[in-house]
Amino acid sequence: MSGRLTIIGTGPGNAAQTTPQARAAIAAATDFFGYAPYLDRLDLNDRQARHASDNREELARARAALEMAASGRSVAVVSGGDAGVFAMAAAVCEAIEHGPAEWRALELEIVPGITAMLAVAARVGAPLGHDFCAISLSDNLKPWTLIEERLAAAAGAGFVIALYNPISRARPWQLGKALEIVQGILPATTPVVFGRAAGRPDERMTVVPLAEARGEMADMATCVIIGSPETRLIARDGLPPLVYAPRSAAGRPT
Amino acid sequence: MSGRLTIIGTGPGNAAQTTPQARAAIAAATDFFGYAPYLDRLDLNDRQARHASDNREELARARAALEMAASGRSVAVVSGGDAGVFAMAAAVCEAIEHGPAEWRALELEIVPGITAMLAVAARVGAPLGHDFCAISLSDNLKPWTLIEERLAAAAGAGFVIALYNPISRARPWQLGKALEIVQGILPATTPVVFGRAAGRPDERMTVVPLAEARGEMADMATCVIIGSPETRLIARDGLPPLVYAPRSAAGRPT
Repeated sequence: MSGRLTIIGTGPGNAAQTTPQARAAIAAATDFFGYAPYLDRLDLNDRQARHASDNREELARARAALEMAASGRSVAVVSGGDAGVFAMAAAVCEAIEHGPAEWRALELEIVPGITAMLAVAARVGAPLGHDFCAISLSDNLKPWTLIEERLAAAAGAGFVIALYNPISRARPWQLGKALEIVQGILPATTPVVFGRAAGRPDERMTVVPLAEARGEMADMATCVIIGSPETRLIARDGLPPLVYAPRSAAGRPT
Repeated sequence: MSGRLTIIGTGPGNAAQTTPQARAAIAAATDFFGYAPYLDRLDLNDRQARHASDNREELARARAALEMAASGRSVAVVSGGDAGVFAMAAAVCEAIEHGPAEWRALELEIVPGITAMLAVAARVGAPLGHDFCAISLSDNLKPWTLIEERLAAAAGAGFVIALYNPISRARPWQLGKALEIVQGILPATTPVVFGRAAGRPDERMTVVPLAEARGEMADMATCVIIGSPETRLIARDGLPPLVYAPRSAAGRPT
């Protein structure tokens, strides 16, 4: 008997933003692999087994999940946000490519979710309303020089930039350096959004001009959105400002 | 009495991918503005009014919705996918910025949704598993030369590229030209995904090497994902191939 593997994005972390498709996929699985805090959010029953692991062991976790699925179990690999954006879907594909042939024959389903930048954007206006990019600031698996090149290319071409994995205990300086790079390219007044824990009880949205943006304004639960030269800020009396990227662009971005 | 305006992303177009938050926001509104095919997907009751409009009248639609909200109604502006990605949230913000002061005082909520590129990615593997960008190919509101610059910058810097609004009756040649530009930069074998109507009954996923990609392979319901030089294709016996962006990158992208 052949098992199945489902890779599930549960969204930002509140039940109202988890799709019915994700909920049904969770209910149907017998074994759950994932970073412990993501598994903690699930409401599992007694016949569903937890296989929690550390956040940095993605490939080992993917292999363990595939092995269990190949043994005939119905396995779920769980990510917060969307499993396809800097998360477990790529690790599972990588394990399949380099693993035994039987892993390619497994029934595989991927369930999309609301990724962090979309949840943050919805809380502050429409900062992703026009051309944008998403960059992981983690230099665990790619050289820092490549990240610098991509930041400069994106800012110079007028893309709004969403930064994932902006900072961690092991990577304390990268966000500050990234902000310095774009500060050298974009106007000082460009709005920057530090969107922490969007949609969760401890949510905190902060909007500052690029000149005042600092690495210390983010933690591991933050997605940072750096505007383009076209990005607008609308002040509102007694309400937080709105940040948005206009649908139109005039020409050369800088 | 002051009304409220909710901007709702309903996801790719099947109920299982619409969040409970979006469903609740639809149930709570009295008046619905949007492109007719998106409104057709809603299950409205007799006390909920439809105000359908053409797809190209975004700003006029946003103003009409704000006016009605300011009159005290509970108004919903509905987009497919995510309302913040090349959709109505930016148009509403633009209308607020240039409209009467009372529009800034309105209660405004934005409900995120699964945007097309996430739905497409989940159907083929993990093509957005590493740094990526999203570009609208519509040159209605920005010059074509700017789009060309952004395509070249993104491909050259190693971003995976998701193309929104790839083609329409009024814009027949832009996608072909965009593919030509990246064909001049990226390897001929780079996987390109034509993801049509992801998650709907008429879904069709096509994966071709960049050298064979043509504008005619897309229609208005298609999101095109162009891989980076790192993007991998995994062939599977009797199953569609998997496309993914590895979590690691070696150095200079090209």
